[in-house]
Formats: sequence, C-alpha cells, structure tokens
Amino acid sequence: MNPIYFDNAATTMTHSTVLEKALELYKNDGYFNPSALYNPARKVKKNIEEVRKKVLSLFPGNYDLVFTSGGTESDNLAISSFARRGNVVATAGEHSAVYNSLTFLKQNGVEPRFAKLNKDGSVDVNSLLGLVDEKTTFVTVTHVNNETGAINDVNSIAKLVKQKNSKVIFHTDGVQSFLKIPYRISNDIDMYSFSAHKVCALKGVGGLIYKKNLPLKPLFFGGGQEKNIRSGTENTLGIYALGFAIDAFKNVDVNFNHVKALNMRFKEELASEVTVISSENASPYIVSFSIPGVKAEIMQRVLDDNGLLLGTGSACSSKLGVSRIISNCGLDKRVADGVLRASFIYSSTLEEVLLATEIIKKCAQKLKVVLK
Amino acid sequence: MNPIYFDNAATTMTHSTVLEKALELYKNDGYFNPSALYNPARKVKKNIEEVRKKVLSLFPGNYDLVFTSGGTESDNLAISSFARRGNVVATAGEHSAVYNSLTFLKQNGVEPRFAKLNKDGSVDVNSLLGLVDEKTTFVTVTHVNNETGAINDVNSIAKLVKQKNSKVIFHTDGVQSFLKIPYRISNDIDMYSFSAHKVCALKGVGGLIYKKNLPLKPLFFGGGQEKNIRSGTENTLGIYALGFAIDAFKNVDVNFNHVKALNMRFKEELASEVTVISSENASPYIVSFSIPGVKAEIMQRVLDDNGLLLGTGSACSSKLGVSRIISNCGLDKRVADGVLRASFIYSSTLEEVLLATEIIKKCAQKLKVVLK
Repeated sequence: MNPIYFDNAATTMTHSTVLEKALELYKNDGYFNPSALYNPARKVKKNIEEVRKKVLSLFPGNYDLVFTSGGTESDNLAISSFARRGNVVATAGEHSAVYNSLTFLKQNGVEPRFAKLNKDGSVDVNSLLGLVDEKTTFVTVTHVNNETGAINDVNSIAKLVKQKNSKVIFHTDGVQSFLKIPYRISNDIDMYSFSAHKVCALKGVGGLIYKKNLPLKPLFFGGGQEKNIRSGTENTLGIYALGFAIDAFKNVDVNFNHVKALNMRFKEELASEVTVISSENASPYIVSFSIPGVKAEIMQRVLDDNGLLLGTGSACSSKLGVSRIISNCGLDKRVADGVLRASFIYSSTLEEVLLATEIIKKCAQKLKVVLK
Repeated sequence: MNPIYFDNAATTMTHSTVLEKALELYKNDGYFNPSALYNPARKVKKNIEEVRKKVLSLFPGNYDLVFTSGGTESDNLAISSFARRGNVVATAGEHSAVYNSLTFLKQNGVEPRFAKLNKDGSVDVNSLLGLVDEKTTFVTVTHVNNETGAINDVNSIAKLVKQKNSKVIFHTDGVQSFLKIPYRISNDIDMYSFSAHKVCALKGVGGLIYKKNLPLKPLFFGGGQEKNIRSGTENTLGIYALGFAIDAFKNVDVNFNHVKALNMRFKEELASEVTVISSENASPYIVSFSIPGVKAEIMQRVLDDNGLLLGTGSACSSKLGVSRIISNCGLDKRVADGVLRASFIYSSTLEEVLLATEIIKKCAQKLKVVLK
C-alpha cells in the first residue's frame, strides 16, 4: 500500500490529469525551441503565452509575469533586483530562499533586518514597522509561513509599510499561498513569487509576478528570453503542466473549504495527543503540531515505517534539529523539539485524514511508553 | 506528415524511450522532495545521485557536478564564480549565455576581451593567447560553436593559456559537444557546462562539471541544495530524463560516425547549390551553409512551408538579421545574409537527409528565379 502523503508543503504529487495533458501537448506540439522562427516553434511560444495569461488572470491587470526555475529563483530575482542599498526588512519567518539571500546582502553593504514572530509563526507587525525607516529600500513578508501555515495579511502590511516609506519595493513569497489561499493582490504589493511543484505541477518551474514596468534586473544573462529578464530556453513541459494545474485547481474557494474541513477534523482527532502550533486562522493546508517530549525526527521515522509521511520543519532546509522558524516562535523547548508538519492538498481525502490520525495516535502512545 | 526537424542544435525532441523511463521512475518513485527525510524521499535523492554518477562517469575522477536549470545558468555560474577581477578572455564565437554575461562584467570593473574567429567560426588561437596576460583571471572557450559547428581544441588551448598564466580558471561551454563529440576533458579544463535538452532529454536541466574543491559561488541562495552551490528543489523528472538519455546515447563514437555519414551526404547532395561554411573537421552534428543571394529568413520560411525545419543562426538569439557569430566569421555579405544551419541528432536518418536536400534544392531554385 502506498503511504499517506501529508507533506504537500514540501512538494506535491504531480496530478495525473495535469501530467497527461502536459505530455500530450508537449508530444504533439511542444518540443520545439520557443525562440525559433518556424511555425511549429511559434506555436510553442503561443502555448507558453497562454499559460502566462492564465497565471496573470489570477492577478489584477497591471501585473506581469516572468517564468523562472522555481520559487527560490523567483525570490532571489526579486531581492537581487531591488535590495541593493540601505537596509531591507523581512520577517524571521521567511523561507530560506529569502532569509539566506538577505543574509548574504551584508557582503554588499546592505543591512538585513528581521522582524519578530508571534507564537504561531506570523510576523509581529509592530516589530516589522519598527524596522522600516527612511533608508529601507525593500521589504519582503512571506504570505503563508511554510512551517506553521500562519497567514500574514500582506496587503495591509504592505500598505502600512508604504505609509511609513513610500519608496519601499514590497515583495511577498507566495509559494505556500498560490492557488491555495483565496487572495487578491493589492496595489501595494510590487512582486509575488510562486512555485509550480507546490500546486500539483512539475518541479523546475516557478514565476515572479511583478508590477508592469518594474525594472527587474536579471540574475543571469544569455539569449534574452522572458523579455530579457530570465535567459535560458524555457522549461516548456513544466510551463504546460502549470497551465493545466491552474485549470484543474482554479476553484480556490471550494478547495480551501474542502481542505479546511480536513484540517479541522485532523486537529479534532488528535486533540488529546498533540499541541497544535498553527493558529485557528492559519492556512488550512498546513498544520504544525507537537507531541511534547517526543523528538520530531524520531516520530517522523516511526510514522514513515507505519505508512504516513509528514514533514519536520521545512524540507528545503533539510537539517536535523529545530528549525530556524520554529525557534523564532518562542515555544518551550519540549514543544519545539517535537514539531511536525502535516500538509494537505486539494486531493487529500477524509479517509486519509482518519487513517493518518489513527497512525499518529498509535505511534505517539507507543513512543511515549518507550521514552518514559 | 510531420516536418523534417533538422534544428537539433536549438533543441532536440525528447526521445520517447527516455521520456517513458523517466516518467515511470517519476511516477513510481519520484515526486517526493529529495531533501525530505523519510525513506521514499531518500530514494529520490539516491536516484538523483545515480544520475550524477552517470554524468561524472563521462569525466575523469577528479571532477564533480552541480545540476542547474540549463546551459545558460551553468555558464553564468562558472562566470560569476571566477570572472571577478582584472580581465577575462573569451572568443567572439561564444553563445550569448557566455557573451552577454561577460559583457555585463564591465559594470563590475572587469574587462571582457574577445578573440577573433577564423572563417569557419573556430577561434584564432594566436588572437586568444595575445589577449591573455598577467591580469587575466578567467578564460572561456566554447567547445563547439553553436552556429557553425567549429570545434575548438579546448584541451590544447587550455594548456597554452595556462602556460601563459597558470592562475587562470579555464571554462568551456560544452552545450553542443556533450554526448556528441568523442572527447576526454584534460586537467587544464576547470569547468565544463552542458544542457540536457540538447541531448534528447528535457528542458529545464543542465549542469556544470567542475574540478573537485573548486570554490564555486552560488548565483542565488536558499535551502542549500547541491552542496550549497545551487539552491532550489531539484528538477527530478528532468534529472531522471538526463540519466536515461545518457544510457541511450552513451555510445558517442558510433553516433558520431553515423551523424558524420549523414553530414557528408547532406553536403554532397547540396554541393552545386550552396556554399558550406562549416569546415571539414567541424562537428558533424552542425552544418552551416549559405545560398548566396537568398536571405536566410526568407529561405527558412519557404522551407518551413515545404516541411523542413532549419535554423538561422542561434535560436537562442532569436533576432532577425545576421548573427553576431556569423558576422565575426568575416564572410562576404551576400554569403552571410544567406546562412542557414542544419543540425542533426543520433536518430536522424539518411531518408530524412535525402528528402531534406531535395526540398532545399527545389526551394533554392524557385527562390533564385523569383529573386532574379
């Protein structure tokens, strides 16, 4: 039997219909180099532009999109384009693609500042605003914390930031919110990153949504694809898959409510066994919880042996021990050491939730006896 | 009927067996995040490491490999890691991924120098050596010119360069030679770039081969994948496809001889109609030729209408008019304006060559009458 996969915040299984449709398009009409000038290649170019339109249809009309190799590159493209002077402000809860890029900026004489987190992993907005001053050039706030699911109200945070310093360029990492959280970007957000493999498409593709005419600076150079912003032959198959994933999962509200119900049932079933870290209004796609006194990496392995795959912290940091983000949530050590992450997707089912919670309860009880 | 596709230097059709095998592995054992710690994800990591070994088996034991999103990123990673001071030397025949990156270096106070080309697009080695001095930090010479197929003897050029300045880091762009030209890298080559979609795998994956312990500097930051050199979730499906492409096409000598025979027949059939620009000892995978007096972009369209897809210059530059590389070959304007590129692949057939040359002859004769 296949294990139950509840680590969808790390990556999702490519949806079979999405993959089939993308392959069909790729095989029939798709392997040509979109920069070539003969007719079949122009069709490939057209296919790509149709996906771009489909993504942009989820945003207001004054935004554009550059395709990249994924969320990490998108975040870095935003940062290296505009975090170039003075100080830059982010939260202590950023994904490493943002956090490590900002930390690196010190080498260029740019000062990174990180705002405190609340216990649920959301940003302490007063702490963030306190860090913004007249020398701040760039602010980035993750939309959904990838470990706890905490949703930051980026639209209103961006507004407050710009009231304090109107020249700031505001970016948000939408990797965990794209096609998941019902959300309309406000005009105070200048850029928004997303990744295709978090929404049942393929790895190797993502994008940066940006306000039209915002002068992005390429991370690297070459044939001038993507309006000279992102050179390199386009990952056509990956872009096609993204397009079909949007078709399949564009009903964000319905999916949100389905996953919300699963999330609530998951927490109900485990209420007596675990401490839930995610707040009530976190993204339903992510539940961060702890079995105090049971180390997360041990529990993860036991669950793995029993047919349930869960995350600990972020797969992208892949280090043992307590994650940077969890450390910044100010939890007791016994709780922090036991933090696991269950993350769902559109296609997750109630049956899976019930089976998974059974497995968790059984394993937790066994481990508690062993560890006593 | 499908058109004959002879623009394999722009991109190749993903080989059906390669794609099937990659998809099978991906579906069974492949969608997990390779950084996750449960067992199925460790298998994905292992799959990736097996492809890395397979690529590295084509190189001596003292080289390592970082996977990237493609040839462009690989070239840029090499350049941004080491082209940081003094002057850097390349050829006027570099792909735009190298050429434009080096041109950009001026902004950082690094001087790019470009050596002259011979008429066939190979580098004038004396010109190149004349540009190398004690302030040269980095030299890059393309292995196979992507427009004319000219092969630069990069091993001996690297040796001569290092005799002149032993501190130089030497890189070669192997995008058009990888799995095509029988070649063993010499110890004077520090780095070698390649791309998967030029060898019947998928777009969105490439790599940089580098001497072990060479301190590469990341182009961007994040989760620390690929030994902290290239952050971002790995393009697993693309990496799997690369591995199966190596299995399918590792018999480089046999493929070379097959394509060489096609190349010679192609030129024989067209001898009375065209001026061949590629030299006798160019890569057989690429034939650059001109129908003097017939503009390349017009001929390309007419051929397209008649079922034959050929390139003009490089698809990656995708501008109309004479390419930078062709301009640098010192050809007469009438010849330069008419330059087309036919490029083959392992699976190209004699039947295709005979049909293609018929089409070219017919179209050339018609156009010559019309244009008189």
